[in-house]
Amino acid sequence: MPVFPINTVRADFNLMVQIAVAERLACVLPAFGVLSAVQQPLHIPGSVEKPMDKIQIGQNCFIPMPVVLVGTQVSGKANFMTVGWCSRANASLPMIVCGTGNHHHSPKGIEETKTFSVNIPSSDLLDKTDYCGLVSGEKTDKSHVFDVFYGSLKTAPMIRECPVSLECRLVQAVPLPTNTLFIGEIAGAYADGRVIKDGKPDFPEIDPLFLTMPDNRYWTFGKYVGNAWSDGKNLIKG
Amino acid sequence: MPVFPINTVRADFNLMVQIAVAERLACVLPAFGVLSAVQQPLHIPGSVEKPMDKIQIGQNCFIPMPVVLVGTQVSGKANFMTVGWCSRANASLPMIVCGTGNHHHSPKGIEETKTFSVNIPSSDLLDKTDYCGLVSGEKTDKSHVFDVFYGSLKTAPMIRECPVSLECRLVQAVPLPTNTLFIGEIAGAYADGRVIKDGKPDFPEIDPLFLTMPDNRYWTFGKYVGNAWSDGKNLIKG
Repeated sequence: MPVFPINTVRADFNLMVQIAVAERLACVLPAFGVLSAVQQPLHIPGSVEKPMDKIQIGQNCFIPMPVVLVGTQVSGKANFMTVGWCSRANASLPMIVCGTGNHHHSPKGIEETKTFSVNIPSSDLLDKTDYCGLVSGEKTDKSHVFDVFYGSLKTAPMIRECPVSLECRLVQAVPLPTNTLFIGEIAGAYADGRVIKDGKPDFPEIDPLFLTMPDNRYWTFGKYVGNAWSDGKNLIKG
Repeated sequence: MPVFPINTVRADFNLMVQIAVAERLACVLPAFGVLSAVQQPLHIPGSVEKPMDKIQIGQNCFIPMPVVLVGTQVSGKANFMTVGWCSRANASLPMIVCGTGNHHHSPKGIEETKTFSVNIPSSDLLDKTDYCGLVSGEKTDKSHVFDVFYGSLKTAPMIRECPVSLECRLVQAVPLPTNTLFIGEIAGAYADGRVIKDGKPDFPEIDPLFLTMPDNRYWTFGKYVGNAWSDGKNLIKG
């Protein structure tokens, strides 16, 4: 694949911007390392006529994520941890994946019981949700923060105040350097009747929270703007 | 842990609701199986005075997720796939995880080059984003849908129109029954200068899209409502 040289003037200008931004950030965010100096110019095949408008930022980059509360039973006691790294993992059987720091208390419960729960808090639970991310179950009893209920797995505590709760059976733990991905099969799913409309979860009614990093902010759910597996059809050539 | 009986009248009422909803849904959503009949009553330790307000829904449950475009180079050609299952996976080294169906074309490129990219589209790219989820790179050339650029890895095509792009080096592939989790180390991160403010990504400016299933809808980013690792401090007992 050929690599064309980028426009020199533009590249110099952008390099100045990159360095200026990087220098400013080196002071602002030493802990996060969000932006770093550009180590090398970008290669932009077939794009010589467009200005190079990208800056290289630090690799410790995050995408905005839904916030969930992961429930575990550690030494027989319910514990809840705030988790911003959670996603569906497999379609059938339905599986979900949660990433947690290896130093946390909750993984002990997952290893003990081979189960955990994933609860979606609404925005009115913001303070309690944040609290569960501030204090460790190792030192603080979080079993009374929420009204707890159990499903068929018996050892995956779920949160009544959350409009949607999933209980999961551990399928696999994937150890990584500082974190572990816990993959669980969704064994049971529970919801408040009010958040089910026309037979489907009504997400504005669920009112989930989202987390962005490294600005460490919570956000609400936005507006309905389109239909998946549908709106792109106008681009399909007949 | 003791299990108290739930209030019988309430339980019967809720069971009626559950069955009614389940029956209605059996017609509406046979493919998704979103709601199922309740197989057994919930066990609610210590909660006998509260009504049982939960209904059991089908396990094929989804949490709202950010939408990304995963870039790969398959047989030397850039390809892009819409992915709704993506999350950070490890803190240090920075890693990201993407779940894709095993039948897709993109995994071939990841296996070939051991690299991939993760691009965050803004809501104005909704149609093109959806298009990349509608057509397979196996039959349709998607290399010209976007203006493509490359970073240091050389084989992870990124999208200039997306305000944030990450290029990733494959660390591990976790095979699951119908999907595979691709875990990649973020080797480079690129952003439009306009979305970096005060040294951090400005997420309203990035304007990411979110996907909900099974209603298959796209949503925008919502409002800033709180601070993480902060707002819960008022609940910490001194």
